[in-house]
Amino acid sequence: MFAPTYLDHNATTPLDPRVREAMLPYLDARFGNPSSRHEYGRQARAAVDRAREQVAAAVGAHPTEVVFTSGGSEANNLFIKGAAAQMKPGLIVVGASEHPCVREPARQLERSGWRRETALIDGSGRIRADVFAELMKQSPRLVSVMAANNETGVLQEIDRLAAEARAAGALFHTDAVQALGKMPISFRALAVSAMTISSHKIHGPLGAGALVLDKRVELAPLVAGGGQERGLRSGTENVAAIVGFGAAAELAVAELNEWTSRAARQRDALEASLLSLGAWVFGAGAARLPNTAFFAFDHVDGETLVAKLDRAGFAVASGSACSSADPRPSATLLAMGVEDEVARGAIRVSLGRDTQDEALARFVKTLGETLQGLRTLSAVAV
Amino acid sequence: MFAPTYLDHNATTPLDPRVREAMLPYLDARFGNPSSRHEYGRQARAAVDRAREQVAAAVGAHPTEVVFTSGGSEANNLFIKGAAAQMKPGLIVVGASEHPCVREPARQLERSGWRRETALIDGSGRIRADVFAELMKQSPRLVSVMAANNETGVLQEIDRLAAEARAAGALFHTDAVQALGKMPISFRALAVSAMTISSHKIHGPLGAGALVLDKRVELAPLVAGGGQERGLRSGTENVAAIVGFGAAAELAVAELNEWTSRAARQRDALEASLLSLGAWVFGAGAARLPNTAFFAFDHVDGETLVAKLDRAGFAVASGSACSSADPRPSATLLAMGVEDEVARGAIRVSLGRDTQDEALARFVKTLGETLQGLRTLSAVAV
Ligand SMILES: Cc1ncc(COP(=O)(O)O)c(C=O)c1O
Ligand SMILES: Cc1ncc(COP(=O)(O)O)c(C=O)c1O
Repeated sequence: MFAPTYLDHNATTPLDPRVREAMLPYLDARFGNPSSRHEYGRQARAAVDRAREQVAAAVGAHPTEVVFTSGGSEANNLFIKGAAAQMKPGLIVVGASEHPCVREPARQLERSGWRRETALIDGSGRIRADVFAELMKQSPRLVSVMAANNETGVLQEIDRLAAEARAAGALFHTDAVQALGKMPISFRALAVSAMTISSHKIHGPLGAGALVLDKRVELAPLVAGGGQERGLRSGTENVAAIVGFGAAAELAVAELNEWTSRAARQRDALEASLLSLGAWVFGAGAARLPNTAFFAFDHVDGETLVAKLDRAGFAVASGSACSSADPRPSATLLAMGVEDEVARGAIRVSLGRDTQDEALARFVKTLGETLQGLRTLSAVAV
Repeated sequence: MFAPTYLDHNATTPLDPRVREAMLPYLDARFGNPSSRHEYGRQARAAVDRAREQVAAAVGAHPTEVVFTSGGSEANNLFIKGAAAQMKPGLIVVGASEHPCVREPARQLERSGWRRETALIDGSGRIRADVFAELMKQSPRLVSVMAANNETGVLQEIDRLAAEARAAGALFHTDAVQALGKMPISFRALAVSAMTISSHKIHGPLGAGALVLDKRVELAPLVAGGGQERGLRSGTENVAAIVGFGAAAELAVAELNEWTSRAARQRDALEASLLSLGAWVFGAGAARLPNTAFFAFDHVDGETLVAKLDRAGFAVASGSACSSADPRPSATLLAMGVEDEVARGAIRVSLGRDTQDEALARFVKTLGETLQGLRTLSAVAV
């Protein structure tokens, strides 16, 4: 089978074989519904409980603070809509580079009388401290800022922002989907009200995510019904996916240091090559995830480059996969003040635990050749 | 490994080995995010498209009418809250024996100004025609009645109820989670606005379900964000689960006639034995699913019986697994006018494609012995 080199780990990751092993019994003899009061049910319940402990341990939370959902998007929506439903309408503040699954629910709140403000970012992609401080003076009720951006990899200072939001009387939520497994994160240390994580970004399966939630926060459930997940998320638990998420979370933390050192080295070498090919590297001035390079070349369209690299056997992204049905240039780059034309050139390479040095060397070579081809072409066209 | 006899298929079902085979490549080399614009993404997208066709074909709908969700509970919540969010508050009517994942979102609507009425059922578990007709005179905006009850298996005349609701100007939704794979169902023939189905009840995996939705109906998404599923359900698609759902839906329809004849014969034989042991069989006067027997014995507590059968190697349910965290007797039975004391005795046996005659013969024998033991005990106690 033709297997292109996968360099798009911020979109999704291959399942770690050890995670798959852990899941398989739950796609087989251990198929029970955790709510059932018989042997099959108890087995399933025990598996979910164990995974809850693994996930909690991986993010420095207590197991009772972990609410399993179907993924990151659902967890973000659960927090934003669920918390808002328990409050009088007021102000919600979201970061300028949030993922659409934070931006859109915040926008939906406007229909029920909420006001929405955006915390602007600077040219490196960081929330502007002055803007944030001003917004906090307006006494927001809810604030949501991502820990790490999916496109640029830029990190926000969540502990500091959370403290400011708390001082202003707001609940603070962070989307840590891209942070988990790529940097140490601790729910307790960040002192946030809620945090979103997702399994399929950490070599775990699709179909599981979690909202880690301070027990003092009251939420209305998004999916109401049988009362699973402490009444915050009804529906038969996706046992195999939750088991996989638990295993993946444990591995992500166990192998964090080793992998992130390697990824940082690989990414830095990659970016050095990109610069020598004449790339703009976005967010390079800020603290970033170790695995992410987001860049553009003058006069080269990102979509075109991604398509050419795809044909040459390399899977990379032109923007955030989750919203790439959308042909507009990256909202994150525009918020960083990058010109529309430059933003249209953006492509993202994101490394994983399985990325080999050799593959990156081949990638750089192919990229160089592809660029040359495109430039010859445009030189001819002119 | 100790493998008790599984007779709780209305709670969840073992994965069909053919479905598992279909899924495994998507837990392996075909791990892409369907939104990605490279080979991995296209493979995943093609798989989701194919499953959408399979599911649509299985329920007599067009592929564009299928909105994948994480399961039945989410699909029910999506319809009820999503439709309500696009309307002025008004009246919502739900059946008296609906699953909590219909009852609870309907109740949540009351907080935003909706009025909620219950369509009462008769002693056999069927919606009372007179009550329903009266409710339709009150011009409801939303009506939700399940196709088949999870506990009793009692069927409602969805086509007739839907026509009445439509004539009254309401959108009509049916929860067909328990109907799919156990009786023929056609979205087109029922002429409903929306229909909920779920994978794990038809020997498919957990983690996938669908809202089948008339395209003229506008819904606000429950999970908003990247815009997947025509903007109605954001979040990276759970590809492996969706692929499994497609395969399971196809098999469920292909094997429907053969299996349901066998199940009906097995269930009738089982109920004949139950009656000779002195059981009350609930819903016996109504048209029912072929695989479900819900019954009780005088002076025998259902929970106790389930626990004893569990120790003897038989997995059966005392109530609906999905709400069995709830110690109250079945709401469905109470709505049918069954006395509290009798309802507390209820146990449910639900057959699957893998249920063998021989297993049911052993079950009846063990049940008889267990009852004798319990009765001797209570005779001694008196
Ligand atoms: C920052 C961020 N938040 C949320 C999500 C959504 O997560 P999921 O795909 O699990 O719904 C993503 C995935 O693209 C993401 O990158
Ligand atoms: C009638 C009915 N509706 C909905 C559901 C919920 O489905 P899911 O477990 O897929 O969320 C169930 C499952 O128990 C059910 O029996």
